[in-house]
Amino acid sequence: MAEKITKRSEDYSQWYIDIIVQAQLADYAPVKGCMVIRPNGYAIWEHIQQALDKMFKDTGHVNAYFPLFIPESFMNKEKEHVEGFSPECAVVTHGGGKKLEENLYIRPTSETIIWSMYQKWIQSYRDLPILINQWANVVRWEMRTRLFLRTTEFLWQEGHTAHATYDDAEEETVRMLNVYKTFAEEYMALPVFHGKKTESEKFAGALHTYCIEAMMQDKKALQAGTSHNLGENFAKAFDVKFQDANKELRYVWATSWGVSTRLIGALIMAHSDDNGLVLPPKLAPTQVVIIPIFKDDAEKQQTVDAARKIKMQLIEKNIRVHIDDRDQYRPGWKFNEWELKGVPIRMELGPKDLAAGQVVCARRDKTEKTDKITMKLEEISSKIPLLLDEIQKNLFDRAKKFRDDHTFQASSYDELKKYMEDDAGFVQCFWAGSREDETRLKDEMKATVRCIPFDQSGEKGKCIVTGKETNVKVIIGKAY
Amino acid sequence: MAEKITKRSEDYSQWYIDIIVQAQLADYAPVKGCMVIRPNGYAIWEHIQQALDKMFKDTGHVNAYFPLFIPESFMNKEKEHVEGFSPECAVVTHGGGKKLEENLYIRPTSETIIWSMYQKWIQSYRDLPILINQWANVVRWEMRTRLFLRTTEFLWQEGHTAHATYDDAEEETVRMLNVYKTFAEEYMALPVFHGKKTESEKFAGALHTYCIEAMMQDKKALQAGTSHNLGENFAKAFDVKFQDANKELRYVWATSWGVSTRLIGALIMAHSDDNGLVLPPKLAPTQVVIIPIFKDDAEKQQTVDAARKIKMQLIEKNIRVHIDDRDQYRPGWKFNEWELKGVPIRMELGPKDLAAGQVVCARRDKTEKTDKITMKLEEISSKIPLLLDEIQKNLFDRAKKFRDDHTFQASSYDELKKYMEDDAGFVQCFWAGSREDETRLKDEMKATVRCIPFDQSGEKGKCIVTGKETNVKVIIGKAY
Repeated sequence: MAEKITKRSEDYSQWYIDIIVQAQLADYAPVKGCMVIRPNGYAIWEHIQQALDKMFKDTGHVNAYFPLFIPESFMNKEKEHVEGFSPECAVVTHGGGKKLEENLYIRPTSETIIWSMYQKWIQSYRDLPILINQWANVVRWEMRTRLFLRTTEFLWQEGHTAHATYDDAEEETVRMLNVYKTFAEEYMALPVFHGKKTESEKFAGALHTYCIEAMMQDKKALQAGTSHNLGENFAKAFDVKFQDANKELRYVWATSWGVSTRLIGALIMAHSDDNGLVLPPKLAPTQVVIIPIFKDDAEKQQTVDAARKIKMQLIEKNIRVHIDDRDQYRPGWKFNEWELKGVPIRMELGPKDLAAGQVVCARRDKTEKTDKITMKLEEISSKIPLLLDEIQKNLFDRAKKFRDDHTFQASSYDELKKYMEDDAGFVQCFWAGSREDETRLKDEMKATVRCIPFDQSGEKGKCIVTGKETNVKVIIGKAY
Repeated sequence: MAEKITKRSEDYSQWYIDIIVQAQLADYAPVKGCMVIRPNGYAIWEHIQQALDKMFKDTGHVNAYFPLFIPESFMNKEKEHVEGFSPECAVVTHGGGKKLEENLYIRPTSETIIWSMYQKWIQSYRDLPILINQWANVVRWEMRTRLFLRTTEFLWQEGHTAHATYDDAEEETVRMLNVYKTFAEEYMALPVFHGKKTESEKFAGALHTYCIEAMMQDKKALQAGTSHNLGENFAKAFDVKFQDANKELRYVWATSWGVSTRLIGALIMAHSDDNGLVLPPKLAPTQVVIIPIFKDDAEKQQTVDAARKIKMQLIEKNIRVHIDDRDQYRPGWKFNEWELKGVPIRMELGPKDLAAGQVVCARRDKTEKTDKITMKLEEISSKIPLLLDEIQKNLFDRAKKFRDDHTFQASSYDELKKYMEDDAGFVQCFWAGSREDETRLKDEMKATVRCIPFDQSGEKGKCIVTGKETNVKVIIGKAY
């Protein structure tokens, strides 16, 4: 608490880490590249899970759980997949005191183990679709890690669905990307571009990959969710066929889609400020903190009693409220602590306020003294829900304005390069490049094509690298 | 569906597996000793999680997440702990394509990794208590596995708390055992004995272990949850000290407590019958299935419309309802399927019923034709919640009667041995034995002291093995 948060303008990376450590969202684990998600951080994950899980179930999905271990031979069945993932796997060679006959990989993702089961479960078109999601931990050995954004072990959900036709699989792939977009924008208050990945950025083993891409406050891109149309690749690798209505045997079509604890990193980097975490109300574990202000026991009793009444009113409105009535800290110290922790509304409540029949509310998203709101006691239960909505909307609008202000149009390679060298933000430009052209972007400006947005104007222009005419515009940026 | 479930009287073990496989609760994974928890089984786990998580939070606990990997050197810090767990660990020796400098154990339980973090987080008595729970997967290499009851990987929750005094830790240990007892009895409809483990049965690294023990339908004992007072053992192993109010440095006191997906096995074995799964209403993913009965499209529309109205009424009462309006199966086939899946109430709804303004309800816990209940349409929303309560209570009462009918008093070693040889059930008897005497029980009758119940009459008698006078009675049984 006493420590200072590095300013964003001084050292953006350190600012990010300072917030995580000081708000006790996560900590470095004694195992290289791993993190501990502390209760303050895990509570955010629980709210992310609840909201997403409901959206998955509303779209017909069910949860299941598949093993952590994947036999080495399974990994080798899908060629692109093994090339993509094998180098970053953790390998179990011993179990129960003995060397294993076959090495086991800790799942970096579960396509292979799941499709080995679908092979047993799918015989007929009547068994399709299978719409399964899994909440799990996965492990990818990372050389350079950063809390929440890239850790050796992380938590995620992975949907794995099986369909009778390409069209069904494609529809599912896009549906789930749209679920992610809705979640990012409505819950995380995070505007995203949604679209398709280029060939060199797609998932190892997919026909094509769709993604949502957000801009962080340092103007870098963060891939916040992906949805893959896997085609028949895994069905072929694991020999999963079904008998269609005409009694013909066909391969099953697959999708997979996932988001991870990385979303917590995105939340932090999109909204927070130099005073600490800023959480969108819909995902804030505590939405309102009430701080009774008292000088003696009589005042304490009076203000805490009033705080409890307010809390009950707000609980009835399904608002998550905490009363901080600790004796050992002064109000100013508490204000700073809850600011650091990102609680959307702080309600101050002293004897004078009570005498005047009012409380004072401070918004976490607007921290000027003039932004404080005085609220009559009888207005609280109607006004606080509206204020939370307003904060949610303000965070989204602010993030969207920031992104729009830092998304540029470029019509020449040099122009693009200049924007990237200046770390100016995203560039939108015509693109008809190849894998090699993408490599050139990486080498020459450390940038990547983030996505080919679904929303295209249809206008034509010249590709920024090849000069070929095209009607496709892409988003280019530096990425986490 | 077409397959037959083995009768309990023919082969109890096969009956158990048949239910799991046919009700699609779980399946064997391609990795030795591992299982796949299928959607029908995972949905039960989700309801278990929801209920327990609320109970944990209501008693002041928060969730967090610690790494899957434990450095080998950590395991070695607590002598009893490493002796207990090392032999059954899975070991990662390679990561990212290279041999690791230090082997990593997949957590068999998380005391060591968590206490290495508590060492960083605890300085003062103000930092205490820490009341953290984790929902996670763990791995214990098992030679003989059985779906849900004993698998190499399983899902569980593990609470890990830190306290300033022995008394605080002891109070927490008992509190959480009582949470488990309440959960087992009120949600799982499973009567349990709760008490202390003997020295030879306690957790590796604990001062003492408390447990809840339930009787299955084959009269064997199943340990359904444990709570450990770990004393200062892990604080000493990881050098976790705090400054007390008098500025003296003291070791921190620890507890841990857990239940796992094994509970699903307990549910199955306690209540199910030869027709399939029987689920207590509070944990049943679907509590009421409505089966419209129709011969043509007009009848289908009429009965499905009525079913939807009933569903809406029941949803308002927070009841989980499913309408099975599939065309491709006949009603009788559907009845069998939902019976197999253990749905507490099946509601049949045909045109004649509708004309008479009524539906017919079949209880899963009482399957005689004469147990069917005719219910007026206008009574449904008031009567169904009561009927669910009655089913919940009946399952508990039935399980309790079964346990009581198979719990015997023995006053001599030979008598005890006879009961055990006959697989008669539990034996309650005086006990003042040693570790060696417990080994003798194991060797001579494959039985163990399941627990020293908290509830003791105080009467005195002679120990069944040593003949010593004592006022302690224990529960002895054969166990899973």
